[in-house]
Amino acid sequence: MATTVETETLLEHKESEDRSTTKKQSNPSFVLQAPNKTEFEDRAIPRLEDSRSVLVQVQYTGICGSDVHYWLHGRIADFVVTKPMVLGHESSGTVVEVGAQVKTLKTGDRVALEPGIPCRYCDRCKEGKYNLCSAMAFAATPPYDGTLAKYYVLPEDLCYKLPDHVSLEEGALLEPLSVAVHIVRQSNMKHGDTVIVFGAGPIGLLCCAVVKAFGASRVVAVDIQQSRLDFAVQFANTAAFIPDAASSAQDNASRLLQDNGLDSGADIVIDASGAEPSIQTGIHALRTGGTYVQGGIGRPEITFPIMSACTRELTLKGSFRYGPGDYEFGLSLIATGKIDVKKLISKTFAFEDAEQAFHTVKAGKGIKTLIAGPP
Amino acid sequence: MATTVETETLLEHKESEDRSTTKKQSNPSFVLQAPNKTEFEDRAIPRLEDSRSVLVQVQYTGICGSDVHYWLHGRIADFVVTKPMVLGHESSGTVVEVGAQVKTLKTGDRVALEPGIPCRYCDRCKEGKYNLCSAMAFAATPPYDGTLAKYYVLPEDLCYKLPDHVSLEEGALLEPLSVAVHIVRQSNMKHGDTVIVFGAGPIGLLCCAVVKAFGASRVVAVDIQQSRLDFAVQFANTAAFIPDAASSAQDNASRLLQDNGLDSGADIVIDASGAEPSIQTGIHALRTGGTYVQGGIGRPEITFPIMSACTRELTLKGSFRYGPGDYEFGLSLIATGKIDVKKLISKTFAFEDAEQAFHTVKAGKGIKTLIAGPP
Amino acid sequence: MATTVETETLLEHKESEDRSTTKKQSNPSFVLQAPNKTEFEDRAIPRLEDSRSVLVQVQYTGICGSDVHYWLHGRIADFVVTKPMVLGHESSGTVVEVGAQVKTLKTGDRVALEPGIPCRYCDRCKEGKYNLCSAMAFAATPPYDGTLAKYYVLPEDLCYKLPDHVSLEEGALLEPLSVAVHIVRQSNMKHGDTVIVFGAGPIGLLCCAVVKAFGASRVVAVDIQQSRLDFAVQFANTAAFIPDAASSAQDNASRLLQDNGLDSGADIVIDASGAEPSIQTGIHALRTGGTYVQGGIGRPEITFPIMSACTRELTLKGSFRYGPGDYEFGLSLIATGKIDVKKLISKTFAFEDAEQAFHTVKAGKGIKTLIAGPP
Amino acid sequence: MATTVETETLLEHKESEDRSTTKKQSNPSFVLQAPNKTEFEDRAIPRLEDSRSVLVQVQYTGICGSDVHYWLHGRIADFVVTKPMVLGHESSGTVVEVGAQVKTLKTGDRVALEPGIPCRYCDRCKEGKYNLCSAMAFAATPPYDGTLAKYYVLPEDLCYKLPDHVSLEEGALLEPLSVAVHIVRQSNMKHGDTVIVFGAGPIGLLCCAVVKAFGASRVVAVDIQQSRLDFAVQFANTAAFIPDAASSAQDNASRLLQDNGLDSGADIVIDASGAEPSIQTGIHALRTGGTYVQGGIGRPEITFPIMSACTRELTLKGSFRYGPGDYEFGLSLIATGKIDVKKLISKTFAFEDAEQAFHTVKAGKGIKTLIAGPP
Repeated sequence: MATTVETETLLEHKESEDRSTTKKQSNPSFVLQAPNKTEFEDRAIPRLEDSRSVLVQVQYTGICGSDVHYWLHGRIADFVVTKPMVLGHESSGTVVEVGAQVKTLKTGDRVALEPGIPCRYCDRCKEGKYNLCSAMAFAATPPYDGTLAKYYVLPEDLCYKLPDHVSLEEGALLEPLSVAVHIVRQSNMKHGDTVIVFGAGPIGLLCCAVVKAFGASRVVAVDIQQSRLDFAVQFANTAAFIPDAASSAQDNASRLLQDNGLDSGADIVIDASGAEPSIQTGIHALRTGGTYVQGGIGRPEITFPIMSACTRELTLKGSFRYGPGDYEFGLSLIATGKIDVKKLISKTFAFEDAEQAFHTVKAGKGIKTLIAGPP
Repeated sequence: MATTVETETLLEHKESEDRSTTKKQSNPSFVLQAPNKTEFEDRAIPRLEDSRSVLVQVQYTGICGSDVHYWLHGRIADFVVTKPMVLGHESSGTVVEVGAQVKTLKTGDRVALEPGIPCRYCDRCKEGKYNLCSAMAFAATPPYDGTLAKYYVLPEDLCYKLPDHVSLEEGALLEPLSVAVHIVRQSNMKHGDTVIVFGAGPIGLLCCAVVKAFGASRVVAVDIQQSRLDFAVQFANTAAFIPDAASSAQDNASRLLQDNGLDSGADIVIDASGAEPSIQTGIHALRTGGTYVQGGIGRPEITFPIMSACTRELTLKGSFRYGPGDYEFGLSLIATGKIDVKKLISKTFAFEDAEQAFHTVKAGKGIKTLIAGPP
Repeated sequence: MATTVETETLLEHKESEDRSTTKKQSNPSFVLQAPNKTEFEDRAIPRLEDSRSVLVQVQYTGICGSDVHYWLHGRIADFVVTKPMVLGHESSGTVVEVGAQVKTLKTGDRVALEPGIPCRYCDRCKEGKYNLCSAMAFAATPPYDGTLAKYYVLPEDLCYKLPDHVSLEEGALLEPLSVAVHIVRQSNMKHGDTVIVFGAGPIGLLCCAVVKAFGASRVVAVDIQQSRLDFAVQFANTAAFIPDAASSAQDNASRLLQDNGLDSGADIVIDASGAEPSIQTGIHALRTGGTYVQGGIGRPEITFPIMSACTRELTLKGSFRYGPGDYEFGLSLIATGKIDVKKLISKTFAFEDAEQAFHTVKAGKGIKTLIAGPP
Repeated sequence: MATTVETETLLEHKESEDRSTTKKQSNPSFVLQAPNKTEFEDRAIPRLEDSRSVLVQVQYTGICGSDVHYWLHGRIADFVVTKPMVLGHESSGTVVEVGAQVKTLKTGDRVALEPGIPCRYCDRCKEGKYNLCSAMAFAATPPYDGTLAKYYVLPEDLCYKLPDHVSLEEGALLEPLSVAVHIVRQSNMKHGDTVIVFGAGPIGLLCCAVVKAFGASRVVAVDIQQSRLDFAVQFANTAAFIPDAASSAQDNASRLLQDNGLDSGADIVIDASGAEPSIQTGIHALRTGGTYVQGGIGRPEITFPIMSACTRELTLKGSFRYGPGDYEFGLSLIATGKIDVKKLISKTFAFEDAEQAFHTVKAGKGIKTLIAGPP
């Protein structure tokens, strides 16, 4: 198992003069060659890019819907895979080498990885929204390689040291949790607010848990699958609602509100589904002056009740990845026991079974599937 | 003409003991009886509702698109005219009677009217968003009568005293200006921001002028009529853009941005048109992290590029009427000469020609049409 | 005891035709006649002021430091008691009569009282800060009578219906809890922030509990009495710090931060003591860019390290009473069990022993002393 | 004179192979050796630190109060000059060399310099407050050399290209203007607000101009020197007030407000003086709920009316240097002609007369003194 630092490997790694010539220093990687075609490659161990970077031996990686989408289609929107690309970006690992100016980490530290490196120079980076940096180098978003490899390099400030009582498996879950934290922070939710979350997949479930932790007075999870709602109820103590596929968005919204004592509408609606009926129902389910956050990805264009949003003066916000403080935030929720992300882990595959893991996610089995790092 | 206070009438009004029995105290009103059917009625002069109310003799009233819509269709969305209703809500006038506890106004004061009375008790009222009050009594929104009458009653805090150098005609224009002020404030626009305004009708033109006054570094007005754009350029010193009806929203947005040196997108987009192609083009024309405000009313549902809004983390806001401070704000813009609303006045009709005025607006002639109060 | 509604009294009240002539309708009141001089008076039962008011039979009233201060000194700052004034403002009770337009309450409802009536017309009221209304009529702030009487009249929106499982004693504690909620909201505290609270009296203790409920990652209570700190640690699970009276504010701040692993300073400092050394220590204990809230009342002028606040770009805010949403907020914290305000109640006195209760508070005995309403 | 690029020098610079060996590549610098002791040194031309840096030939440098303070005392607060340090930080110049990855600038570009390099890695940098970065390398703040030299190196994003119609002298003034912009932005001032500015030195004057440009409805400049107030009135069209040294802060505040029709207090108070009586008067002159910004530096501790700030729920903010967007903001104010910073320039000294320039500033002569770059 990869839960402890492979000391021997590290020593060899440090002793060798020329990494490229010794087989032991190899960097096994799970690479998308073309749509539906992955291969294991033995790549060069990445070098520290600058004096503030660290080399991390990856130990757990969760599979995300976007990984599966690249695997199956070779692209997401305008991001097209044009050359072989290592998959994966929800990872934790152990620091095995640190740059000369690194101050906050040392070899052996167990860390969660924030897998996107912003430019730090543009207006968005400098105004505190680095997730909107147009020069962002994000793992497993072409042309950048992902983390399903033995080694990965990141600046020290994007590696979050795990407290002793937080496991590396939990560390890997910090990525989707930070997505949920960012979504919830976009909503400016206040303690006591009522919240409806559409979509009870990993991100929706984590949004439910985060708004509960932030003091939502009532949370309703919405999904079309009873089993997912059952999980939501048990995981985050939410109410649950299954929309009627034959009813209009407005009717579903009315019934949702009535069933849950939210007669004047919810303060906050979060869509983590990306589905057109969810989005429409969500808008109608908001109170006047309420806030809607679009977190889920779906069809680029939908039929949208914009005038209801206008005359009821709703605020609508997109949410994209995570920004300043989101990882710290998420880690504090895990470390203080407010959210038990371990419950989301359905199965952990060995590295050599990575493709099988992808098939499992594609089949919609379980909540969150992990792949252990190469030994 | 009604530009000065009708002293004689006022004296008579004060002298009489019993308003209901003297013909001189009548309250001529322009009343919508049914779709396409208006009549002049002689109604009772309204009584002061409480000790903080004032009675205003209305002197100028602008006609708004919503007035025309009620006139033609008898309804707007769920607001249905089910009994005869006085039209009009963009008004100025002269205070002719004040309640016992009124402190800020006296008889003879020239005022602009904010024509919606909030309940002051609900959560929205108390949190500073009284425009979202569900119990709002708004002039010429059924079942509440409007201001196209000789007299109208309002609480003192909704009557804004005009400085000596601001005319009553300008006072009537304060209503649409406050709509524009509210839209711009919803955008959280900062000095130096770049702004695109879709729709060059009265509200769009006033939005252009307000963002200019707030220090927008570049403003582009968008409309499909060259003559309206010409007016915008001259009124608010904007750039102008005519979209190509045969091109996609995305292509129009690209051309708009290139033509105006806004390569990375505009900071702020305001839609004052309500038109689907404008809304779509506006979303595509925003920079990552930019803000869109929906001010114009149109079809309830449209095809909307929601995923672009999500992944670029846009903020979208509706804007509805006006709230705390908007009238003061607008009045300061007029009083300091930053916006010359007089330029928007195309024609002023006598009260007895009110229906003719409505026909003029319906025909799309001019920018803003006023009706003088009954003598 | 007054823990249940005195049905008989209520019936009598309703049966009588003319309140002023029957002894049974008397309104026993605890009245401050002059500094150090209180008397029980039998006053007239207050009439409903308007159709949205309710008459409440007061059942519990907590004693606040300001009550004691008026009792001893006859004034607080510019508020001078110039005529006999009923004391008390932290109250709960039972609705015994409702105005004609009251919609949210009915006779028999158990409610917590928000004891300040804003004008609802001024700029502060309309912009969502009614606690800053200059025309506020606040209980037991001269010239307005307080709630230590059998009956009290309030608008319905300032009476908060208690859920069945929340007791009237807890309802009385909602007033100081709302003070604490307002203080914490002024700080814009975020989940995960570190917080230091100076002063472990009722308000300081409640601030500790509120920031814990909001997800503070670390809370340090500071006081000069070990016993109060012991209570804080047990009540709100805080860390504790006793400053050294012989050390400078800067040295105390350094030691406080070191002892609590806050090397770069706290995100938030709340002063609920009003004491000069606390305020100074608090400023020095903040991180660069941190936020300080002044909640405690003390000497009007102190020596203040303003340049440290300037060059480290601190935000300092005053906090005064409570505003929109604070009572709802506080009530949700009680109702969901996040804060157990009952633990703060040291002793409950019968109405006839009210003066004794004041002596107890003056002597600094216990945390919160209640007085039951007159039977 | 140095108003045009010294083409010959630049060519020589580029032609030479080895800077350290040719006299022509020298970097004349004005160096503080010890308190009251400066010398000209011929230092090495700085190398580009990384691929995103540019080398600038400095052409104008304004002298700031902090430069004079270091010159006279060798320290400011905890910043102590322990080795020779080049003075100066308010500069403009011409780009003479660009790093390999520089995209936004080219040789020959005329730029204003933002003279502080943040670490870009810490929480403050990433959350959009890089001015609070504890690892900031700021020009002429020990141990970092300033800009009073022939050459200076900065990252490209801290060099702001001047439009053709903005002179290099104006470019040098962008530094103090950005200080003023940051102060005003800290105040969250809204269009129409009333503002009082204490201190009519360069920063106070620029604050007056910025709030005017932002739409302040009334601005009162306060100073103890009539001549400075006369300048303020003419430069920024303010009202003016001289406090009475024999009166209390409260009395001066009352008179100030009455004289200027601000009976209920100002919305915003900015202190650009650092003087205790100004700070005290400023607090008393604010309206309930108003905002105070401390921009001026003075004695570390003062007597402060903290309870007035508490019970009137004021917001107090420090302001330190400038952050994201402030330079762009300031440049837009200059470029659009809203603020004519040239009016502040009293005298421009040749580089060899730098010490004489410092004596002029020390003597309080004029508003802003510039030193031209070495030829």
